[in-house]
Amino acid sequence: MEVREAILGRRSIRRYGGQEVSREKIGQILEAGRWAPSGLNNQPWRFAVVREKKDKMAELTRYSDVIKGADVCLAVFFDHESGYDRTKDLLAIGASIQNMLLSAYSLGIGTCWLGEMLNRKEDVHDLLGISGELELVAVIALGYPAESPQSRRREIEELVIDL
Amino acid sequence: MEVREAILGRRSIRRYGGQEVSREKIGQILEAGRWAPSGLNNQPWRFAVVREKKDKMAELTRYSDVIKGADVCLAVFFDHESGYDRTKDLLAIGASIQNMLLSAYSLGIGTCWLGEMLNRKEDVHDLLGISGELELVAVIALGYPAESPQSRRREIEELVIDL
Repeated sequence: MEVREAILGRRSIRRYGGQEVSREKIGQILEAGRWAPSGLNNQPWRFAVVREKKDKMAELTRYSDVIKGADVCLAVFFDHESGYDRTKDLLAIGASIQNMLLSAYSLGIGTCWLGEMLNRKEDVHDLLGISGELELVAVIALGYPAESPQSRRREIEELVIDL
Repeated sequence: MEVREAILGRRSIRRYGGQEVSREKIGQILEAGRWAPSGLNNQPWRFAVVREKKDKMAELTRYSDVIKGADVCLAVFFDHESGYDRTKDLLAIGASIQNMLLSAYSLGIGTCWLGEMLNRKEDVHDLLGISGELELVAVIALGYPAESPQSRRREIEELVIDL
């Protein structure tokens, strides 16, 4: 799939079919996340593939249905030990997440980037047995799409500042 | 260009040829930034195309040569008025930046994402006449590449947490 088609066509998918996302495809998606740019090339992103504990994790958000319906989730963490500047590190992790969303879309897999679960991040850490320097910053639901939603964006004139 | 090829092949470019990046291509790159996902679809990113004031901006960083050599720069701002959660908003802006880097690469244009200039963000704001709710979070240099650098990433085993 072409870059432009992926960037403009990707949408958040909240309803999924039952098909399993193969380990191979998950590997390709993680590989995309790995190749994002970061300040000082510090790569402060860490990932966990959540399959067995997915339905327990679903209890920690009001978007339970998305998590339950997904085949698998990725939990994305900020590794403070690798970090050097919170603003720049978070931007870099956002780049890594976008690489994974685009990669998934190009493989026919739908994703939903969930931030609301950060309200219960300590509970997610406890559930997954994550401690120390890792901070949950996003959960990504993955599965084969069972919907084709539309979305909107601000007009370009609203985004570009005239100098 | 294929998504996978762009994600794995993109590198930071710090030396550029003299060719001009057309307005049309800049428009396509901004359009890619526009279509990133964001929490509550709040789209907290704003962009400025810096051409005339580029060489003055180059004086505000120790990476002057990159900025001077580039044909044009994009300044990326976080619009606090649209924001709702700094962590999630910065992740979303990182996604928007990555869309622009990938889009540029697929168009044959090299980019360098510069964060060091944030040390002098008030001076950048003054130079560009930006005030109010906008916070500079990144500068992206753009131009036709005059180098093919290599880069490295942590091994996947270092990034994926076993549950």
